[in-house]
Amino acid sequence: MFKDATIEEINSVMNNAWTVFHAYRKMSLEQRAVFMRTIAVEMEACGDALIQTAMRETHLPEARLRNERARTIFQLNSYADACEKGQWLEARIDTAVPDKNPPKPDVRKMLVPLGPVVVFGSSNFPFAYSTAGGDTACAFAAGCSVIVKAHPAHPETSEMVAGAILKAAEKCKMPKGIFAHVHGVSFEVGKALVMHPHTKAVGFTGSYLGGRQLFDWANQRKDPIPVFAEMGSVNPVFLLPEKLKSSASDIAKMYAASITLGVGQFCTNPGLIIGIESEELKLFIDELGKLIRQTPPGPMLHAGIVKAYKEKRGNALLQEGVHLVAESDTETKENEGLPTIATATGQAFLNNPVLHQEVFGPYSIIIRCKNMDEMIEVAKHTEGQLTSTLMATENDIRGNEELVEAVKNICGRLILNAVPTGVEVCLSMHHGGPFPATTDSRFTSVGADGIKRFARPVCFQNWPDSLLPDELKEGNPLAIWRTVNNELKK
Amino acid sequence: MFKDATIEEINSVMNNAWTVFHAYRKMSLEQRAVFMRTIAVEMEACGDALIQTAMRETHLPEARLRNERARTIFQLNSYADACEKGQWLEARIDTAVPDKNPPKPDVRKMLVPLGPVVVFGSSNFPFAYSTAGGDTACAFAAGCSVIVKAHPAHPETSEMVAGAILKAAEKCKMPKGIFAHVHGVSFEVGKALVMHPHTKAVGFTGSYLGGRQLFDWANQRKDPIPVFAEMGSVNPVFLLPEKLKSSASDIAKMYAASITLGVGQFCTNPGLIIGIESEELKLFIDELGKLIRQTPPGPMLHAGIVKAYKEKRGNALLQEGVHLVAESDTETKENEGLPTIATATGQAFLNNPVLHQEVFGPYSIIIRCKNMDEMIEVAKHTEGQLTSTLMATENDIRGNEELVEAVKNICGRLILNAVPTGVEVCLSMHHGGPFPATTDSRFTSVGADGIKRFARPVCFQNWPDSLLPDELKEGNPLAIWRTVNNELKK
Repeated sequence: MFKDATIEEINSVMNNAWTVFHAYRKMSLEQRAVFMRTIAVEMEACGDALIQTAMRETHLPEARLRNERARTIFQLNSYADACEKGQWLEARIDTAVPDKNPPKPDVRKMLVPLGPVVVFGSSNFPFAYSTAGGDTACAFAAGCSVIVKAHPAHPETSEMVAGAILKAAEKCKMPKGIFAHVHGVSFEVGKALVMHPHTKAVGFTGSYLGGRQLFDWANQRKDPIPVFAEMGSVNPVFLLPEKLKSSASDIAKMYAASITLGVGQFCTNPGLIIGIESEELKLFIDELGKLIRQTPPGPMLHAGIVKAYKEKRGNALLQEGVHLVAESDTETKENEGLPTIATATGQAFLNNPVLHQEVFGPYSIIIRCKNMDEMIEVAKHTEGQLTSTLMATENDIRGNEELVEAVKNICGRLILNAVPTGVEVCLSMHHGGPFPATTDSRFTSVGADGIKRFARPVCFQNWPDSLLPDELKEGNPLAIWRTVNNELKK
Repeated sequence: MFKDATIEEINSVMNNAWTVFHAYRKMSLEQRAVFMRTIAVEMEACGDALIQTAMRETHLPEARLRNERARTIFQLNSYADACEKGQWLEARIDTAVPDKNPPKPDVRKMLVPLGPVVVFGSSNFPFAYSTAGGDTACAFAAGCSVIVKAHPAHPETSEMVAGAILKAAEKCKMPKGIFAHVHGVSFEVGKALVMHPHTKAVGFTGSYLGGRQLFDWANQRKDPIPVFAEMGSVNPVFLLPEKLKSSASDIAKMYAASITLGVGQFCTNPGLIIGIESEELKLFIDELGKLIRQTPPGPMLHAGIVKAYKEKRGNALLQEGVHLVAESDTETKENEGLPTIATATGQAFLNNPVLHQEVFGPYSIIIRCKNMDEMIEVAKHTEGQLTSTLMATENDIRGNEELVEAVKNICGRLILNAVPTGVEVCLSMHHGGPFPATTDSRFTSVGADGIKRFARPVCFQNWPDSLLPDELKEGNPLAIWRTVNNELKK
């Protein structure tokens, strides 16, 4: 239905985004915030039609999509608040000391936007990590123009949201071209967008292969640009002995729900559970198996994801030492993902990198270690993750420092006695993690700190007050937090 | 005199740095700060012997080296203060809201160290950007172990400073191996250090070719790591019409000194000056030429730099449309750099990328634009820079917004009516800039914000107060600035 953008169209979109960037970057924090809030209003105004379209394209249930739209609106509004508050600008002022030898000049610094940002939406979050999702909201807050490549699995939903953004842009009298929306199934569209000289940063949510490809292209440019790709994660869960002893069946209940939530199609899905051989671990596996058998399969997002799930699940179960524990008792339709848990020993995990890989869907493998030393080895040999979880008592934590440190070292978010699914949108959230969870462990894609992905510092030396940007003027007309001569002040 | 490290030695150093990292990262901010201050004391205690050794190896004058050591000591002490103050940790707290639907968990975030950092020292700053220089100080503050590859142009100086660091480590009872010092003239030593799986970040100050090579290696790893390479910069200076009219000969005086300061061997050396054809520009060029003729040549850092200067200067002067304006009247010795200025038209600059390249040494080219439009074109076609300078009156700035925006867009530091040489060490400094000035425009290598290069956020979800790190405990025992429920507090 939607044609791939041609190279000529991409050139025209990017040239326009570059011109417009220079107008938009000068707009005040307040103007940007008003624009973002208007996008939120326009998304809401899309009403049921948007939900219906998304349901048809993604096969996600209505309640989930309504929640996700509400979350997307919350993101736009809360990042707009953060944009206006200006703490993200990291304003710093060192005033002149003329009688120092040599004289110390007046030096002031703040973040400025990078330039046009290309956003590749995800398939599993048609609103929150797509067209008007977190990347787009952060880029607008930073002062960047945005080009979204619609995800081919929900192009109509994406068109409708793009329409809402364009309507908001018009209402707020934004420069034409501040936002552009292109379609592309082919490899070449993505490559042309990343390689275009006017593209200054890339946001992506999706598979490891996709993210790594964008990252490699970006680094092969004459002038490399940052790529913020949020890729796969198996989100390991470590079951510590004392906790498991007291709560094996409660943990099984929590995790049966978390593994199968949304047919397992979350980047924070717990795909790897690690315990130590014991009666309690057997009990946990039995209970989890029972619950998984009772959980019906559900429709997955699109045919490509169903196919990949079947293949990866099948391949995982074929690995030496991997045993199927349980799968759903309910018959599975063609487009559905079958809830499944498997198990293997710590040694099998340590010997076989295939067992470390994400099986995107309602699948999890339980690794049975022979002792704590082996559990520590497993933690040390696990790749970078968005989240890790410790199911542990206070004694477990205090008595196993080496494990806790090893687990902290591999992840962006460390959860205690809860499930990794569910990512709170707040400033303290870190949705990121060491490679290969993301391509840049220093930045988050959830929470207003994500704005900083699309900005860089510029320092003004020896400028008179009258010519400085408002953010750095002596009188602090925007009333933002700034560090003045090493002291935070407002 | 010093043998290249073997691959076995590098493996052993890196394995040790990795083990030690896990001990050092747990040390308190105060312990790290005490260690850094002790390094400063030990560097001072190296006394005249260190200065003499550096003079012999670098041919830099004594006063300059004494100043540079003082600056290095100031860096260590001021970054130690910043480390202890903890603002760089970006601590954020969102407290739980149990009655929200779904319940909002307690989420807390702070920066944690990346892991072992490999530092490649520069040749032009044997103290401030070498063994115990800014990269090393920032990495220690962040909680990382450090491996320095000594610059082959001053290996003995580097050994002495390494000795001071090791002495400080012993005095402060730091874990053995927190700092390692290796030598290497060959390509292979650098590559092995960057590619080692335990290396988690790289700091580098030097040439574009060197920095880009390290960056490419780092990105070809199975798990790419950040490389903070500060590379070349020509630091363009834009002479605006009204200012030039009133101050042509004053500007010539400032710039004759800046171009030849330290025989032009600063990354902030002004290698490109852009004006608009006029009587005043002629006057400026004449005056600058006169002063350059009067400036004696000086010894450069090492034979490689002299050779490169001669070649690049020669090649620049051979380009079509480039005319020699003046060179020093004093005879030049074999190891000296000859102060030189040349000129070309705006059109010649726009047509020939060779004229954009850095000629590291006391060389600058004056570009004569036919009008402001051409000056804007020149600004837009100039690559990323550490600094740009505007010599301008308030009228010049207000009347030429497009130029000012274009100039801001290409640089990390924007100077008004001063010279780019001289980099103040303070929190507001940004010593960085868009590629190819550096490989990551979002970070600085001068000032305590440089600590953040070697850290990443980790978020703790649902942890009881007793198990949280002190930085995030409810009672704020370290009394650091934190953002609690979106409000900055102490």
